Amino acid sequence: MSDKMSVESLQALIDGSSFLRFIGLKVVSIDPAAAMVVLRVGLRPELERRDGTGQWHGGPIAALIDSAGDYAVALGLGNVVPTINFRVDYLRPAMTAELTATARVRRAGRTVAIVDIDVSDAEDRLVAIGRACYSSQPG
Amino acid sequence: MSDKMSVESLQALIDGSSFLRFIGLKVVSIDPAAAMVVLRVGLRPELERRDGTGQWHGGPIAALIDSAGDYAVALGLGNVVPTINFRVDYLRPAMTAELTATARVRRAGRTVAIVDIDVSDAEDRLVAIGRACYSSQPG
Amino acid sequence: MSDKMSVESLQALIDGSSFLRFIGLKVVSIDPAAAMVVLRVGLRPELERRDGTGQWHGGPIAALIDSAGDYAVALGLGNVVPTINFRVDYLRPAMTAELTATARVRRAGRTVAIVDIDVSDAEDRLVAIGRACYSSQPG
Amino acid sequence: MSDKMSVESLQALIDGSSFLRFIGLKVVSIDPAAAMVVLRVGLRPELERRDGTGQWHGGPIAALIDSAGDYAVALGLGNVVPTINFRVDYLRPAMTAELTATARVRRAGRTVAIVDIDVSDAEDRLVAIGRACYSSQPG
Repeated sequence: MSDKMSVESLQALIDGSSFLRFIGLKVVSIDPAAAMVVLRVGLRPELERRDGTGQWHGGPIAALIDSAGDYAVALGLGNVVPTINFRVDYLRPAMTAELTATARVRRAGRTVAIVDIDVSDAEDRLVAIGRACYSSQPG
Repeated sequence: MSDKMSVESLQALIDGSSFLRFIGLKVVSIDPAAAMVVLRVGLRPELERRDGTGQWHGGPIAALIDSAGDYAVALGLGNVVPTINFRVDYLRPAMTAELTATARVRRAGRTVAIVDIDVSDAEDRLVAIGRACYSSQPG
Repeated sequence: MSDKMSVESLQALIDGSSFLRFIGLKVVSIDPAAAMVVLRVGLRPELERRDGTGQWHGGPIAALIDSAGDYAVALGLGNVVPTINFRVDYLRPAMTAELTATARVRRAGRTVAIVDIDVSDAEDRLVAIGRACYSSQPG
Repeated sequence: MSDKMSVESLQALIDGSSFLRFIGLKVVSIDPAAAMVVLRVGLRPELERRDGTGQWHGGPIAALIDSAGDYAVALGLGNVVPTINFRVDYLRPAMTAELTATARVRRAGRTVAIVDIDVSDAEDRLVAIGRACYSSQPG
């Protein structure tokens, strides 16, 4: 499983997505043995809650959560998979220029995979947490 | 309550948000008596799953759900409120140029409000459904 | 599809479950065309939040939601299916001797089915709502 | 905070609930500094999926998750609080005579608290995970 994906091949997969390229999603690190990926995004004006506040809108945070979970599953399967559903809990306003998402697969079953995703700000405070369910069947 | 918000004042509230202005969120109609709002977004290249496919990325759909629910609550309260958490279930690939979100408050309590949000494509097929919980306390 | 399940055959399926027999789950009506079932439970002392208060504990309400959704899916498939995940939102204390759950399939896909479940008290006030995802694949 | 609740006072709080006494919920340990509680339940015939199978019905597992999360919050506040909503993901059939729930508060805010709950079987396999949101305001 560990040879299915490298940081580079995962980044290439991400860069193939128009939306993820737009929000500037970057792979920080992967840990195939732990089925874990760390991703990062940087704030751009279009992603702010209100002009010039420096606060992230919740929408891009939800998108970050969904995508980070998906790439944690992709690490094992070698390709992105459809999201079935996910939950986001917002814990604090996200106010730093960068956010980091750490996604860890809790269970990779025959038909679905469940992933937990923690989103932290640049000062390592948890700003949101996600839990997502993906279809893990071969197409 | 019905005089708290008009289509115009709700749209002005939305346009104050950098991210929602970017995704081009438009108010279609409001029904204050039913605590319901209908919103619309149009696909732009940055919101696609992959270049030129015409398929929406799930991230903007999740953002649409969160925002539509928020504005359904705002209809009653007169201002936007923090999202506590929400769930998205994706039902079908979203392939049409426009998507419509219909948000209806299920319960507006003293401390939290619960909203259901249905997202349909231009052919009126359900593509995703959301359920969201907002803090409804006066700041 | 409509001949797969009758009220009686659905009730027999329910009565095969030790836990559901214990909480006394009863089929009120089914509507196969709408993929909808209505179920009812009556309060017994073991299901109370606290002795003699007449208030339902949230646990049995969550179980009612999960089961009602499952039987709405069973209506179409002819058998019960594994729950993948579900969400419960509690809206009000449940204080009446009987509770009614109305479950409606929102999407029956090839691999998963999504169901909405509303729980009302004897005075027809919504006390909780659920959204659940089931594996809909043939075993 | 650590002197608000002992294993004994938490158990007494649990035993005040008719339903939790029925399902036999027991406090295994508490860690007030980590806002964490460990609880256990034992299978009784009424909680089985089907007679004599030894498999837990999902309903009692959902109830265990909701309650474990609540008592993790109670550890800090000194009393039980209303559940706003929660999500359960079932990962595997639960087949052992005892199940253990470990609940850890992820964020205790001014108005809501978010808790993660892991449920493991007697062989320490994860059978279900929950994420729950509670109202943390003083009554």
